[in-house]
This record gives sequence, C-alpha cells and structure tokens, in this order.
Amino acid sequence: MTITCDMSISVDGFAAGPEQSLEHPFGRGPGERLHDAIHRSRSAEPEAHAGEYARLKRAAAFVMGRNMFDPGRGPHDPAWQGWWGDEPPYGAPVFVLTHHERAPLTLGATTFTFVTEGFDAALARAQAAAGGGDVAIAGGAATVNQALRAGAIDELHLHVLPCVLGEGERLFDGVGSLDLEQRGAPAGTALGTHLTYAIHR
Amino acid sequence: MTITCDMSISVDGFAAGPEQSLEHPFGRGPGERLHDAIHRSRSAEPEAHAGEYARLKRAAAFVMGRNMFDPGRGPHDPAWQGWWGDEPPYGAPVFVLTHHERAPLTLGATTFTFVTEGFDAALARAQAAAGGGDVAIAGGAATVNQALRAGAIDELHLHVLPCVLGEGERLFDGVGSLDLEQRGAPAGTALGTHLTYAIHR
Repeated sequence: MTITCDMSISVDGFAAGPEQSLEHPFGRGPGERLHDAIHRSRSAEPEAHAGEYARLKRAAAFVMGRNMFDPGRGPHDPAWQGWWGDEPPYGAPVFVLTHHERAPLTLGATTFTFVTEGFDAALARAQAAAGGGDVAIAGGAATVNQALRAGAIDELHLHVLPCVLGEGERLFDGVGSLDLEQRGAPAGTALGTHLTYAIHR
Repeated sequence: MTITCDMSISVDGFAAGPEQSLEHPFGRGPGERLHDAIHRSRSAEPEAHAGEYARLKRAAAFVMGRNMFDPGRGPHDPAWQGWWGDEPPYGAPVFVLTHHERAPLTLGATTFTFVTEGFDAALARAQAAAGGGDVAIAGGAATVNQALRAGAIDELHLHVLPCVLGEGERLFDGVGSLDLEQRGAPAGTALGTHLTYAIHR
C-alpha cells in the first residue's frame, strides 16, 4: 500500500494563488496563470500529459483537504456538491477534512465522507477503505504539507508548469528539510515537467 | 546580446540554506543537502550534466553578487581571492557587487572588478565589457532576484536537485508573478532536472 500525491505547481512552488474561492478555485491574479498553464498543457498536448494527469485519479481511496472540496470560508453550504458534477472522477471513497459535520455524499461511483477528527483519522479511514490499495492525498497544498510533515507520503508526483506566482499557497511550506529520491529522468514537454520523487520515511 | 542565468535549486526553490559562510558556502544544515546533491549529479554522471553545468561559464562577462564572491558578513578581507584558486573558471570580466571599494583582482583569465554603485551599474559595465556577447548573472539568489525584478534576465536555466531545504535563500523571492516560456522538454536524469525558460520583458 503506497500513499501517493500529485501536485501541479508553478516553478516557484505554489499550488494556488491567493484568495481562493468558489469563483476562483486557483485564487485570483497569479493563480490564474497556474490555472491557464495547467489547462494549456492538457488541451494542447493531451497525449503527452494525459497519463500523468490520469494517475491522479487511480487510487483506491483519497484524503482531500477542505479547500479542495470547497474553498469558501464559512461552513459548507449543504447544497454544495463539489466541482465535479454528477460523476466525480475519483470513483472511490474520498475522505474530506472539515470542521463541520456533514452526512456522506455519493455522486456516481464517488462517496465523499466528511471527517472532523483531523488528518490522521482521515488517513486511517482512507487506508481501511482502500483495502490494501493505494491512497492518494488529493490536495490542496495545506493538506499535502500536513501529510508531508506527518511523514505520510511515499511517492510525490510534481507537475511543474512554466509560470511564477510569487504569492499564494505553497507546497512544502513548513515541512522542513527532506532528502528525496527522484524516480527516473524528468518527463514532459515545454508545456509541463513531470517529476516523481520517493520520500523515505 | 542575451542576459542569462544558471541556478541550481532544491525542489522547493532554495539556492542555498541559511547561514552561508566561507566554511559553508551553501549554508549550514539543509544547505548541505543541496551542496551534496549538486556534487552527486556532477560526479556520478558527469556526461549527463557536464554540458549544463559548463554553460554557466560561457558568457563574455558576468555580474556576481557579493555573497557569491564572499559570504562573510563584514567588509571583504583584501586577502580573500574567491573560491576558485589561481584559475577561476569564468575566464572573462566579472563585476562583483559590493559596498566596499576594492582594486580589481586578476586571476588567470578572470578579472574581478568590484562595483559599489549597485546592480544597474554592474550590469551596464558587464554589457560594455561583453562587447555584444552574452552576459550571465552568476548568482547568488539575492542578486538573481534583483535582476529578475529589474526585468534583466532573458534566459533562465534552472537545475533542480532532488532535495527539500525548507529554509535559506530562495530564488524568485520578492519577484512577483511572471509568465515563463519553457524552451524545449525538460532534460536530465534522476540526479538532476534541467529546465530552460525564456522570460519576456
């Protein structure tokens, strides 16, 4: 059982710009550069990047940060069902970190379960639900950084897009110093670089 | 005439750890991870990375930050002649930013000229000395960030090493948001990734 994580980041390491909201899930201003760069790589060269982006959705269970499901600031709107429509691409149990109780939400093959007991509890539930399969930390950066601080990620897949944000939510923030083992040569094209790192606990 | 810059950075964007000194030019603690990773890529796979690292020294003139020549905190020790011995690898005029007057220092084919009038003056002198050839910003990160803020770099070559520092001197710090144009696919091996970006002024 491997705990994986895929993150799309700017060259300066941001996973989103400032002021994320339902209207601007990657944040305003600089975040739009990252959003546009991700979209450009996916749409201009689908074959070059599709395998990388598809892996994001291949785990047997997921842990998702609250901002990834709903970047609003207040309690979840109980009518909010995520960004993904009737058939979210996860197709597996997703454990969403939150401070607010909410009944599970099933959409297509995906069930979102809202966990108020913190990251460790959400990870334990995802591991149980995965039944020996891989668990993915689905983001956002704050949750990934929490997982990195806890030493809970085995394999980190970074997708580096050609832009600099300068502000926003930064991957590795507060994580400290780590030795990484890069798995294989970098892949990708001029529209995006794919790097795989093993993190030894 | 192109203004270029080569920087070796950790995955989280640091060019050096904290507390740089003559004894620890990459800083103490986490900086040693970066130093070791650079050394590993150069020594284990010289052919895979030599072309990339050699380009650092190919400009017709250089601008160098004070910390790159001498990371001590006080005035330059007039006896200090840099890290490079009798034949520094630049083989060209190098304009060193400093707050302290010092007579030019010639070692082999390299002449270090100490400039107290700031970055713009050093860049203008390097451009004049390059006679139409390329000028390279030789680092460290503070000087590169100053050059990026001034819109003075055309081509940025990043060498991304498999480590996370968590603290130190960060590339892109205070530079703001930029669109980059990546030139070609990423190159390199599991020991280091080479990325080339054009920056449009």
